[in-house]
Amino acid sequence: MLFRSDNVTAVCDEVIAAILAVNRGDAAPYGADETTAQLAGAFGAYFEARVSVHPVATGIAANALSLAAAMPPPGAAICHRNAHVNTSESGAPEFFSGGGKLLVLDGAHGKLSAEAVDALVRSSSPDRMQSAPPTAVTVTQGTEAGTVYTLEELAAISAVCRRHGLVLHMDGARFENARAALGCSPADLTWRAGVDILSYGATKNGAMCADAVIIFDGPHAAQLGRFMGQRRLRAGQVFSKMRYLSAQLLAMIEGGVAERNATHANRMAAKLSAGLAAIPGVRLLHPTEMNEVFVFLPEAVRAALARRGYSIRPRPEDPSVVRFVTAWNTAESDVAAFLAAAVPEAVV
Amino acid sequence: MLFRSDNVTAVCDEVIAAILAVNRGDAAPYGADETTAQLAGAFGAYFEARVSVHPVATGIAANALSLAAAMPPPGAAICHRNAHVNTSESGAPEFFSGGGKLLVLDGAHGKLSAEAVDALVRSSSPDRMQSAPPTAVTVTQGTEAGTVYTLEELAAISAVCRRHGLVLHMDGARFENARAALGCSPADLTWRAGVDILSYGATKNGAMCADAVIIFDGPHAAQLGRFMGQRRLRAGQVFSKMRYLSAQLLAMIEGGVAERNATHANRMAAKLSAGLAAIPGVRLLHPTEMNEVFVFLPEAVRAALARRGYSIRPRPEDPSVVRFVTAWNTAESDVAAFLAAAVPEAVV
Amino acid sequence: MLFRSDNVTAVCDEVIAAILAVNRGDAAPYGADETTAQLAGAFGAYFEARVSVHPVATGIAANALSLAAAMPPPGAAICHRNAHVNTSESGAPEFFSGGGKLLVLDGAHGKLSAEAVDALVRSSSPDRMQSAPPTAVTVTQGTEAGTVYTLEELAAISAVCRRHGLVLHMDGARFENARAALGCSPADLTWRAGVDILSYGATKNGAMCADAVIIFDGPHAAQLGRFMGQRRLRAGQVFSKMRYLSAQLLAMIEGGVAERNATHANRMAAKLSAGLAAIPGVRLLHPTEMNEVFVFLPEAVRAALARRGYSIRPRPEDPSVVRFVTAWNTAESDVAAFLAAAVPEAVV
Amino acid sequence: MLFRSDNVTAVCDEVIAAILAVNRGDAAPYGADETTAQLAGAFGAYFEARVSVHPVATGIAANALSLAAAMPPPGAAICHRNAHVNTSESGAPEFFSGGGKLLVLDGAHGKLSAEAVDALVRSSSPDRMQSAPPTAVTVTQGTEAGTVYTLEELAAISAVCRRHGLVLHMDGARFENARAALGCSPADLTWRAGVDILSYGATKNGAMCADAVIIFDGPHAAQLGRFMGQRRLRAGQVFSKMRYLSAQLLAMIEGGVAERNATHANRMAAKLSAGLAAIPGVRLLHPTEMNEVFVFLPEAVRAALARRGYSIRPRPEDPSVVRFVTAWNTAESDVAAFLAAAVPEAVV
Repeated sequence: MLFRSDNVTAVCDEVIAAILAVNRGDAAPYGADETTAQLAGAFGAYFEARVSVHPVATGIAANALSLAAAMPPPGAAICHRNAHVNTSESGAPEFFSGGGKLLVLDGAHGKLSAEAVDALVRSSSPDRMQSAPPTAVTVTQGTEAGTVYTLEELAAISAVCRRHGLVLHMDGARFENARAALGCSPADLTWRAGVDILSYGATKNGAMCADAVIIFDGPHAAQLGRFMGQRRLRAGQVFSKMRYLSAQLLAMIEGGVAERNATHANRMAAKLSAGLAAIPGVRLLHPTEMNEVFVFLPEAVRAALARRGYSIRPRPEDPSVVRFVTAWNTAESDVAAFLAAAVPEAVV
Repeated sequence: MLFRSDNVTAVCDEVIAAILAVNRGDAAPYGADETTAQLAGAFGAYFEARVSVHPVATGIAANALSLAAAMPPPGAAICHRNAHVNTSESGAPEFFSGGGKLLVLDGAHGKLSAEAVDALVRSSSPDRMQSAPPTAVTVTQGTEAGTVYTLEELAAISAVCRRHGLVLHMDGARFENARAALGCSPADLTWRAGVDILSYGATKNGAMCADAVIIFDGPHAAQLGRFMGQRRLRAGQVFSKMRYLSAQLLAMIEGGVAERNATHANRMAAKLSAGLAAIPGVRLLHPTEMNEVFVFLPEAVRAALARRGYSIRPRPEDPSVVRFVTAWNTAESDVAAFLAAAVPEAVV
Repeated sequence: MLFRSDNVTAVCDEVIAAILAVNRGDAAPYGADETTAQLAGAFGAYFEARVSVHPVATGIAANALSLAAAMPPPGAAICHRNAHVNTSESGAPEFFSGGGKLLVLDGAHGKLSAEAVDALVRSSSPDRMQSAPPTAVTVTQGTEAGTVYTLEELAAISAVCRRHGLVLHMDGARFENARAALGCSPADLTWRAGVDILSYGATKNGAMCADAVIIFDGPHAAQLGRFMGQRRLRAGQVFSKMRYLSAQLLAMIEGGVAERNATHANRMAAKLSAGLAAIPGVRLLHPTEMNEVFVFLPEAVRAALARRGYSIRPRPEDPSVVRFVTAWNTAESDVAAFLAAAVPEAVV
Repeated sequence: MLFRSDNVTAVCDEVIAAILAVNRGDAAPYGADETTAQLAGAFGAYFEARVSVHPVATGIAANALSLAAAMPPPGAAICHRNAHVNTSESGAPEFFSGGGKLLVLDGAHGKLSAEAVDALVRSSSPDRMQSAPPTAVTVTQGTEAGTVYTLEELAAISAVCRRHGLVLHMDGARFENARAALGCSPADLTWRAGVDILSYGATKNGAMCADAVIIFDGPHAAQLGRFMGQRRLRAGQVFSKMRYLSAQLLAMIEGGVAERNATHANRMAAKLSAGLAAIPGVRLLHPTEMNEVFVFLPEAVRAALARRGYSIRPRPEDPSVVRFVTAWNTAESDVAAFLAAAVPEAVV
């Protein structure tokens, strides 16, 4: 299971404590409880902005609800070909939006470029009925290639969005890892960079089952937030015992837990990446900018790992390409042992 | 909050213990973990049948996924006018099914009658294109009126379903309360009664956020189960850290927790119902058969309760009609105090 | 086939002539042709307003596209229980809207009352997530009971819509019959009465396959019209050879064809209704206000008609209740002969 | 308008005659008429097979209804990146299927290869919930590159479909052009090649507004045909005056009209293609196999055409690339004049 993903981990102590703390007495259902009432204030302070916070069970739910609001029928959303929403959600955006279309672009190292987005929007004139009309752009931060959009790159994309009236959505399943990598504030990485709506990921970063749709004040806030409660409820995403979900979210942003967890994971990935890159024949496929390492492993290295009992899960399309993911609780000693095992004997 | 609903309660000790027990080490994500692997066996034993078990976060998700499978486009489902799926899910069945239609019937005390279902199906000939074709029937057990279908009533409805090739779905948000009321086995109340697919409710009965779609072996099992994993995932209902969801479900059916909790709630409702019915002017609107009491409260009783600090939530359409719900942790002393408070002074 | 429906008729000469007139040379596809370019002007003049006109193949398409625009997810629409959109479109509104819900009300003679609409909206607070939030009201003019809303009744309903920010949609499959009955202008019956969006029916009134969504200037026009072209196209409702559809619509409103056809049909229905009502035992179930007659026929009358070779199609739920529909080409002599045949011998 | 598309043309005489021929008397609505009753027999004879025929207004409707039946939720369909269903239907397949996903493949000259389809299916294991599960393959015959699948190529793709239990859909907007190119029978090109469901295009080939979904007997026929009437009706695709639609379809396949029209169009394209290819600097981008010519035009040729009054519509992404389409009524003299005009003066 080592380095397989950050969603294989258990739940961090602070989140467990928060769940146990709210487990007393009755509480009004469906989010009318006192814990949930703290979300807007706490996340507002965290993001230095007026926000609405909509807790959900999974990152896919956060993405799909966000995109459904951002591409009302017959709208479409622009995304990277390798975006999680396109490759790994079994059609969730299409389903939640009542048949909305993803307009797919390529881009190096998992990133959309502002130029490509602009060109696509320009080519699909609103008068050309055959093209599904783009109403949103979605970026994954950090990306599916383990890279992180710079604030400048985000600003360029959001400028294109503003120019064409498009919503900018951020899939932040690893938002805190990206933020730790950039060393910027939550505000800098979101509304100050032009993000209208965020899928905030807590589950991978140490929570149990807690992500959230966060809508920032701005030109699209009214449309995005309209009937979001009913939208979530009809999607089966409004927990009757909501306090247990809200408590997880609060625990993550209070006391620096989210940042601490993400920073640790990133540090472990940097160690792993550097160690692997030093092995002859190993080649990084993307820069290691947060907690994921994409790497070409020559046969000798794979054989060495296998001999020492490490099972690795190669990409289906090319067994020499592997993704390693570190997490909030990755042990430094595990990284060291793994790196030692990866060195082929001949080399030693 | 007293008697407001069974979803205002905290989580019972056994479920908390189960969650803490799985909170160690890594586990494969998306349901490939060892805890989840036990579900089919454990629920198979519980239901004395081959079943597939699909954990979800909420009862609405369980219902909507079940109905989406049971009424593939352009199918429709027959339900009671007051069914939760029709009145309280903000259009979830229509949404999950890609626009499926609910065909609504009336019926005394929250129950569909086999005759009415049969007549509706007969009137919508498959050749009459204007009518959405019924492919499923959904019953709520126990009902939204606090009543419980007898096994004979269920058998009659399922006979109609079999005759016309319809799927029989059971919304079991309070399945265990209904079962405790009937004193029958899980098998008796489901597949032996002709139920093809069940929304099994654990949340109201003491869990944190755990319900499940359960598909029974039978003529419709293949259709209902086809790609249920992808169906759940694209609905944002597949937890990456699934073990925490599966552990709750296992905790409920192991060691008799579900039955114990439901039996207690039913007993409290019986006490409450009998006590209220003994107050002059109070009238039960439906028989109290499980853990819900529907009652007409004269002004004097409402005033008495208010004076003694009890806030009650009347039905929007008629302030003299109130629903009381008891739960797994309702204190017998709370029932007694409430009944004492409900007696108008003049009467004393 | 006599009196079975107004959609059993052939196409009137003026429409055939218009189709043949555009059948020459090439024309730009998908509505970029010169015939289609005339629609906005011609219908604008007809309705004395700025309108956008979206031709479609069927009345169901017009209704479903209108409602999809009027109830964007997760919105709902209020309609009469017997509304065509609820009973006879196989779930089209639910499908086109991505799972939108119809909120159903009763009302005498096929009409919604402003009071009932108001009460329903008030009961579904936007904060109550369980209820699908109403965003539109749809009225059928003339109704499914053969009656016609007065301008005052429409004004009262539209006042409720304005108060709550709801879109008012009119299903005008028999718009011209209703208008002829009221003797008012197209403007009076639509935007002056507060209608935001209209399904304009031409097919039943003498065309071949031509209805249209018409959006009136007003507070909801921008939302309703947004990407309506793409919405229609993705629904398979944008004819590549659009001129043949547009020509039908123009032919209907030019030279008074629509009014003439509708007036004739209404007159024939009045004769039929009066003649039937004069037969002992016959009872009108609704006032005959346009081109439909709903009538209770005693067994003797049904027998007399059968003996003289008239086949009538009773309602499935009650064979003594029959709907007769007259059309643009109903022959006065057919009405007379039918009435003569309906008189039981004993009476003669 | 010359060579812009085959949908700019008027309607051929035989279709007009057929429409006028049915324009008499009453006819039962919604397809219960005598003309529509002939469809199954006539198309059955045409295809030498038992078929069900479902007339619709547009090719997009035919494709989207076919795919919705072929990829019931949460299914997906495999298509070429340039397939009309992916690029030019504004998301119709996603919409009609309730959020189904298109899985996109590249391939030379607009064709899918059996190998690529097989590899994609193998890579999306039914147990991998993140991937939308492919349940169908759709091929366009002739393709969006003006090429035509050989019977061998189709057989290879259908073998892959059979192996994996997938439905094979053919978008036959230019079915007759492809068939004329191959010189095979309708049966050879469809069910004998493994096609389960066909969008049969008549509009581009000389009709007014008539395409059809045709389902062939076979392993998937029951699923594909289930409630197809209601599916069409709720999509607004069941004409009340269906005879006018059915008459067009019958006129096309009777008396060899479809074949004659398509053969002529193909012959004109061959002439045009050969003539253009002979001009220095002109390069064919795809083989001209039916009635479309994709060509690179050097600046000198474009200038020559412009000078002589020919307006050409270049591809948005590259003004030197042009598609020319010939039609059932393309005049040989127009081809000759155009070719003469395309020769730059310097060359002459």
